Amino acid sequence: MNFKIRRAAKEDCKDISRMIMDLAIYEKMPDQVKISHEELERDGFCQNPLFECLVAEVPEEHKSNEGFTVIGYALYFYTYSTWKGRAVYLEDLYVMPEFRGNGIGTALLSKVAEIGKKKQCVRLQLSVLNWNTPSRDFYAAKGAQDLTVTEGWHAIRFDGQNLDNLANEAPKD
Amino acid sequence: MNFKIRRAAKEDCKDISRMIMDLAIYEKMPDQVKISHEELERDGFCQNPLFECLVAEVPEEHKSNEGFTVIGYALYFYTYSTWKGRAVYLEDLYVMPEFRGNGIGTALLSKVAEIGKKKQCVRLQLSVLNWNTPSRDFYAAKGAQDLTVTEGWHAIRFDGQNLDNLANEAPKD
Repeated sequence: MNFKIRRAAKEDCKDISRMIMDLAIYEKMPDQVKISHEELERDGFCQNPLFECLVAEVPEEHKSNEGFTVIGYALYFYTYSTWKGRAVYLEDLYVMPEFRGNGIGTALLSKVAEIGKKKQCVRLQLSVLNWNTPSRDFYAAKGAQDLTVTEGWHAIRFDGQNLDNLANEAPKD
Repeated sequence: MNFKIRRAAKEDCKDISRMIMDLAIYEKMPDQVKISHEELERDGFCQNPLFECLVAEVPEEHKSNEGFTVIGYALYFYTYSTWKGRAVYLEDLYVMPEFRGNGIGTALLSKVAEIGKKKQCVRLQLSVLNWNTPSRDFYAAKGAQDLTVTEGWHAIRFDGQNLDNLANEAPKD
């Protein structure tokens, strides 16, 4: 299949927002999505963007059943390891179901790796749900390590009232 | 105990580097540390810093057995959730053993939460090793959720040859 990977533009945020919701539905947490395309435009396409994004696009003649030509995306940002230095974190990788099996996911992922390497990143990290066997197999086949399995890393989160309580405990300057 | 939490300055990087190694020894992976204090200075104290850092300092009369007054640190950066927006990620939180039990860890953690809230972050996230029961209990007692346990999130990493291979697969522009 003929497709192109390119940097997302501000005008792509409606497509990205639609696919963020598709991915959340697949991950069984659609009620968690609070971000709109306006917020993506503001946060990703400003002076100091909070993330970068690639999209996968197909020609008009291969558009999706609903008429979309932007049919996949990879959203990422830069993090820091105190052991190794700069790293890239892939927050979302998604290809619409009807376009899977054509190497589009691999193209998005490898492009993020290439961009990261150009910025001296020594790692590419991401998170995956334990029941999401297709994704876990996909990353494992490409040589990724599951750090939760091999080293025992757990992800911890404060949010909502817990985060407020914590912030309120901060010592006054 | 009398202590102060303040923003790290470039001059603190030697102390921070020393404690990064202490933490890596505690986490049983000291051979993983490749970052020197010069790299911390370059990466954290430039035009667009890759991280921010707080330090905990005690007065001269309470200095450590080896003569240190900077005795804890919290190193963090900003990430992005496509569901919720801006978040803060706590890469390292450390207090030297002889100073524990005085609320210094809580002060560092809550200050990061406060700084994150001021920047509209809706989450504070971090990672912890499954055998590190004191840390897991510390975060749980403050209301944090273990996402690996409750939702099944696993951390996945590409690095070294795997990352090179992936980058080499990227489609040419």
